[in-house]
Amino acid sequence: MSDKIAFLGLGNLGTPIAESLLEAGYELVVWNRTASKAEPLTKLGATVVENPIDAITAGGIVFSVLADDAAVEELFSMELVEKLGKDGVHVSMSTISPETSRQLAQVHEWYGAHYVGAPIFARPEAVRAKVGNICLSGNTGAKERIKPIVETFVKGVFDFGDDPGAANVIKLAGNFMIACSLEMMAEAFTMAEKNGISRQSIYEMLTSTLFAAPIFQNYGKLVASNTYEPVAFRFPLGLKDINLTLQTASDVNVPMPFADIIKNRFISGLAKGRENLDWGALALGASDDAGLTK
Amino acid sequence: MSDKIAFLGLGNLGTPIAESLLEAGYELVVWNRTASKAEPLTKLGATVVENPIDAITAGGIVFSVLADDAAVEELFSMELVEKLGKDGVHVSMSTISPETSRQLAQVHEWYGAHYVGAPIFARPEAVRAKVGNICLSGNTGAKERIKPIVETFVKGVFDFGDDPGAANVIKLAGNFMIACSLEMMAEAFTMAEKNGISRQSIYEMLTSTLFAAPIFQNYGKLVASNTYEPVAFRFPLGLKDINLTLQTASDVNVPMPFADIIKNRFISGLAKGRENLDWGALALGASDDAGLTK
Repeated sequence: MSDKIAFLGLGNLGTPIAESLLEAGYELVVWNRTASKAEPLTKLGATVVENPIDAITAGGIVFSVLADDAAVEELFSMELVEKLGKDGVHVSMSTISPETSRQLAQVHEWYGAHYVGAPIFARPEAVRAKVGNICLSGNTGAKERIKPIVETFVKGVFDFGDDPGAANVIKLAGNFMIACSLEMMAEAFTMAEKNGISRQSIYEMLTSTLFAAPIFQNYGKLVASNTYEPVAFRFPLGLKDINLTLQTASDVNVPMPFADIIKNRFISGLAKGRENLDWGALALGASDDAGLTK
Repeated sequence: MSDKIAFLGLGNLGTPIAESLLEAGYELVVWNRTASKAEPLTKLGATVVENPIDAITAGGIVFSVLADDAAVEELFSMELVEKLGKDGVHVSMSTISPETSRQLAQVHEWYGAHYVGAPIFARPEAVRAKVGNICLSGNTGAKERIKPIVETFVKGVFDFGDDPGAANVIKLAGNFMIACSLEMMAEAFTMAEKNGISRQSIYEMLTSTLFAAPIFQNYGKLVASNTYEPVAFRFPLGLKDINLTLQTASDVNVPMPFADIIKNRFISGLAKGRENLDWGALALGASDDAGLTK
């Protein structure tokens, strides 16, 4: 508990993670672009700062949970990384491109600091229930230092070696596979529906047998009822992630035909005004194509 | 145990089902196109006949486990169905098109017999372990009569109502989703591999967390090692099933873009001489596309 931890980014995911760290007894200095979101954490003992650099301790630890590549690159200016300095560790939890992680890692190393890619698989409620899973990659000593800290809020920790971008590759692959699960259920349930079989009954059969995994059981519920509210993960973020996946794959010459279809589902969903739904609404595309939606 | 059961078709799947019925104490009259395959069952008490019609008892029960639509249509000639006759029940376990099931059901009803669509989700070893799942659809009384019989060799029985084709729709949907699971793992693992991450490590992470379901764990093992022997389900049967899926979907105006990609994976695999591999070898397509296979 000796480390004072900087925590930058208190969105849907950042907030429950920060709360978990505070509850575990860590001393947190928090910052968020919209300061009002940080206020409730003061009751749990957090110190709120107006300027992110003021959260940083030389040689300390900083967590970041931000929206996208641009937000991480903007926040981690050379000035900030320089202050983090020798032996400082940046735990970068945002879903960003592996390439951005590799570039940021170089900047960190220049100043003697370490960048650890640390994306998490967890919806906000999964963080609170401590059933999420985190992937780590980057400097070995830095990973060892932060492991006991992340273990306070996840179920599983998976180490993907030295490459700071590797953990992001796994995160993108996982999100891609979730999106594919949505699309395959959408196509299968729609074929069933137009054969006079209720979406609910095919959902129940398949997710209690061959596909008895949380992804299919939880997202399948949305696809069975074609209901994509309330929002746990915003629709446009789905497009952001699949674009990152396709770029990452293209960078190493890997065609991904399923990812191309998913991308177009998101683009079409935006064209149809679905930007305020959960990203699961990509599954509406199959119903649209079959003439079932208006 | 009062019913004498006719059992037609002793392939990879038919044989363990027939064995289970014999072990459960049922009296079986078996037939197979290649008679030698039927011989070992005599040790378990089965009666072997040379002509399928000789297996049929008027008003009795007949199971069929055959390769494709043509085999079922050829075997269930009007002569045979007439002999099955009033109150006879045909338990049709082959993976065939819903449309063929509906047409066969009409012929059966004409002679007072009932056709029950009864495809099973189970590899041969799953039948032996009694962990498979069966979908039933068709005449209610006929389903009630056969339920205690099928319960001797499956874990779950799922009833999809009166439409004799409905159970086949579910079977095709399930096989389609398995094929999609193979393709999505293939694309994701290949992206990881070309980013320097071992296929085994991404397999272990994802199938122990988000995708902790037997389909992903078992097929994922094949995709992780890109090894598709020994064969549990032959490659060309994969193409047969996805063609049935696309035809069934097209009949009710449901486009299935994922199924189109799967179909082309199978066609390309045949072009590359993979007809003697397990159908999981569709996953080699992603490696081919990324220049990883020769």
